[in-house]
Amino acid sequence: MPNDPAVTQPTLRARRLHLHSQHQAVVVMRTDCHVCRSEGLAARSQVLLSNGERHVQATLFQVEGDSLLALDEAGLSETAWDLLGITEGEAITVSHPPAISSLASVRRRIYGNRLDAQAFSAIVGDVVAGRYTDVHLAAFLTASAALPLNEGETADLTDAMVKVGDHLRWDAPIVVDKHCVGGLPGNRTTPIVVAIVAANGLVMPKTSSRAITSPAGTADTMETLAPVDLDMAKLRRVVEAEGGCVAWGGAVHLSPADDIFVRVERELDVDTEGQLIASVLSKKIAAGSTHVVIDIPVGPTAKVRSGEAADHLADRMSAVAARFGLSATCLQTDGAQPVGRGIGPALEAFDVLAVLQNAPDAPDDLRQRAALLAGAALEIGGKAEQGRGTVMALETLSSGKAWTKFEAICRAQGGLRAPPKASSVHALVAPSAGRVVHIDNRKVARLAKLAGAPEAKAAGVHMEVRLGATIDRGQPLLHVHAETASELSYALDYASRAGDIVKVEP
Amino acid sequence: MPNDPAVTQPTLRARRLHLHSQHQAVVVMRTDCHVCRSEGLAARSQVLLSNGERHVQATLFQVEGDSLLALDEAGLSETAWDLLGITEGEAITVSHPPAISSLASVRRRIYGNRLDAQAFSAIVGDVVAGRYTDVHLAAFLTASAALPLNEGETADLTDAMVKVGDHLRWDAPIVVDKHCVGGLPGNRTTPIVVAIVAANGLVMPKTSSRAITSPAGTADTMETLAPVDLDMAKLRRVVEAEGGCVAWGGAVHLSPADDIFVRVERELDVDTEGQLIASVLSKKIAAGSTHVVIDIPVGPTAKVRSGEAADHLADRMSAVAARFGLSATCLQTDGAQPVGRGIGPALEAFDVLAVLQNAPDAPDDLRQRAALLAGAALEIGGKAEQGRGTVMALETLSSGKAWTKFEAICRAQGGLRAPPKASSVHALVAPSAGRVVHIDNRKVARLAKLAGAPEAKAAGVHMEVRLGATIDRGQPLLHVHAETASELSYALDYASRAGDIVKVEP
Repeated sequence: MPNDPAVTQPTLRARRLHLHSQHQAVVVMRTDCHVCRSEGLAARSQVLLSNGERHVQATLFQVEGDSLLALDEAGLSETAWDLLGITEGEAITVSHPPAISSLASVRRRIYGNRLDAQAFSAIVGDVVAGRYTDVHLAAFLTASAALPLNEGETADLTDAMVKVGDHLRWDAPIVVDKHCVGGLPGNRTTPIVVAIVAANGLVMPKTSSRAITSPAGTADTMETLAPVDLDMAKLRRVVEAEGGCVAWGGAVHLSPADDIFVRVERELDVDTEGQLIASVLSKKIAAGSTHVVIDIPVGPTAKVRSGEAADHLADRMSAVAARFGLSATCLQTDGAQPVGRGIGPALEAFDVLAVLQNAPDAPDDLRQRAALLAGAALEIGGKAEQGRGTVMALETLSSGKAWTKFEAICRAQGGLRAPPKASSVHALVAPSAGRVVHIDNRKVARLAKLAGAPEAKAAGVHMEVRLGATIDRGQPLLHVHAETASELSYALDYASRAGDIVKVEP
Repeated sequence: MPNDPAVTQPTLRARRLHLHSQHQAVVVMRTDCHVCRSEGLAARSQVLLSNGERHVQATLFQVEGDSLLALDEAGLSETAWDLLGITEGEAITVSHPPAISSLASVRRRIYGNRLDAQAFSAIVGDVVAGRYTDVHLAAFLTASAALPLNEGETADLTDAMVKVGDHLRWDAPIVVDKHCVGGLPGNRTTPIVVAIVAANGLVMPKTSSRAITSPAGTADTMETLAPVDLDMAKLRRVVEAEGGCVAWGGAVHLSPADDIFVRVERELDVDTEGQLIASVLSKKIAAGSTHVVIDIPVGPTAKVRSGEAADHLADRMSAVAARFGLSATCLQTDGAQPVGRGIGPALEAFDVLAVLQNAPDAPDDLRQRAALLAGAALEIGGKAEQGRGTVMALETLSSGKAWTKFEAICRAQGGLRAPPKASSVHALVAPSAGRVVHIDNRKVARLAKLAGAPEAKAAGVHMEVRLGATIDRGQPLLHVHAETASELSYALDYASRAGDIVKVEP
């Protein structure tokens, strides 16, 4: 095997650095090691790591001196370590990676040529294999924004993203799902919708994400109520027993390409319709859904800012979904204000519980919104007549059936539990009497994160006022919840210098 | 100062990691440190480092456990360390970086809008300040390729790149320069051109780069003959004394933005005319040149592949240069074959010396090529009549005046020295008699690098045949030069499995 690198190339001993680099495989080598010298490797170049069985492409950093590594050691990040699946001290080779042929398609796309299904398949395959650097990923996404993906390309990209991930299949003829395009703070309808829909006999295997930049994701909130870290087999058992689940999507890999694209899109702050549709639909198709309700909040600070943009997105979404036999129903909703009162995993869970348990102080906006989405699911799932879904959903809530179903789902996922409460709570009060004219969602979210959310489950913000409310001087505008005194003081310090978080005018 | 992060934020102790990451500022922090927790920092996010005086944006990696860092330490890469200018153990703060407002212009450019001078200026300023990640850089460069920069945008980008760098100014009314678009192996004309031009009384302050992916850059080759690491003051003294220099551009910062763009363009393998022109001209303008000769090699494996492409590039280059009062003369040259015999710093230096010293075995292609470029410079500099420059250049060589001038320049730069010779030399011989029909430039370059070039100055490849040569069985095709036995064996190992490097047909 004259071309086998393991035979002809010198080896290094693998050393686990316990270094976290979010999806990026990193290797650290000595500047003066024999492999760097003989291969002519420069810092920040891409290299191919191999233990003979597996190959992983990684970004090289170099270190001088022996404080971190011995001369014959290669230090690996957690991602590199996991992908190679090796043990401490095992021999690995480090060499130049092979050329990435799908980059030719990316370059063609940059220069204005449309791509076919085969090209998207090759690109997505290389992305998931970790062969694309940030530079390559950004170029592909930018090229897809400069000349927007057309319907055929969007479908081909969606198909490629589905094919590289895991798949769920269900015996039921109808499998419903829901998705919200662009999160509003506190918009935690999912657990309520799943409970209502499953209580009415439909199948709804819902997977959700954890927060990345926000104070809470649906998985973070649900985790304060029940285990969400379900593998494929466990998820299937829950859904077969109860008709629905609210699981963390990270434990099943429905669209691994999307996890990679999303990070880069966030860094670039570029949202394209084509990528958004492929992102949403690839997960729904992989999850085996037949019908999906899409919540499109529209508002000046929401992801979708006008009714026309929402209309175009809805039309394209439905058309691409139809190519995969998936029926998509898009609902435009109010995106001007946060939803409910709690912001942070446990605080949002208390809102969810209040609605499900018909508590007198349950936030009505969350209840109405969940009923609207659940109603649409009941209608497309054939459980309610057209126009009667919302009423049926509200009845399922008020009768207690939704709460009973939710309890059963939580038990099946591993047991219902009480969300934690924060040990430190501090009120921010109105400096003067007047009317609430503005709530800065961005600052509220930042305040909740500084208080410890989502890592500290009980931490976050509890809103005490809504837009338009008339208040007295000294009345609480919101409460900051924290698990430690230092996090509380850190959040309050921010509040003292952030300017108006809740703006009150006389 | 309620908004001063140093006042309100907790600090970490800076620890120098001696980590090389090529222009990228990196900070490593403990996952469980108080700053990561309170700021909600995730691995691979961008953070702002500050010691109160200076601020640097860096990419965050996180590490678990105490093997690398104490809980209150932040480990810094060399780039971060140098930019902050701190000492071991000094207190620094780590916080979220401010929003980068110029990214709005990048996004506008992605969506097809042209940018004005102010936008380019803001983008380039943020790039040089290290605020752009690879994702941002790739998006900007991709957007400039998807909708190519027009002449006005190219000029505005060039201007922005000039303004963020250092500037050289000269008393002479005419200051000439040369540049080659896309290197051919062994095409080391620069030292010869500078010697000829300066010997004829023109001012030519030449700065050159080191190799990044090739076996030698002009600065690497020149360094085997004289010191090249000249700062601004020293460079000025050399040019004022001798009329010319051959210095390393890295010690003066004529176009720091270009250094950053070039790395990303290489990774993307996208060359756009606009970026190329801005790259070349920004350095020439910053260097105070009034006239520049551009060598455009045209060939099937060169950067420019057709005469039409070369014509368009030449026209645009000249037009943009004219806006800055810079006169550009573009020459299309043969890009089908390597130039000279040596490939590697010292081996190329021996070719340069042979031409300058009129050695009987001096490579004639290198001599003719240098004379053509020097001749064009003599003509535009007013020293030779139109059409007489090449002859004048050849006379300057054969009279020994070019060699005398070159010796003087080397002395002024710190002393002429003899290039090193390799201790290990090995011939690759023809397996059969026949005719040389193909030389794989890529493989030759790779062989030279594996032998140790450019770090090992004496290492590389010496070509013994040229295309079309008739050879006997067993006749040397090339010699591999190495400084150590292990590097030699590593190169020969590659040669044994690389297939035809020099192809011989009966």
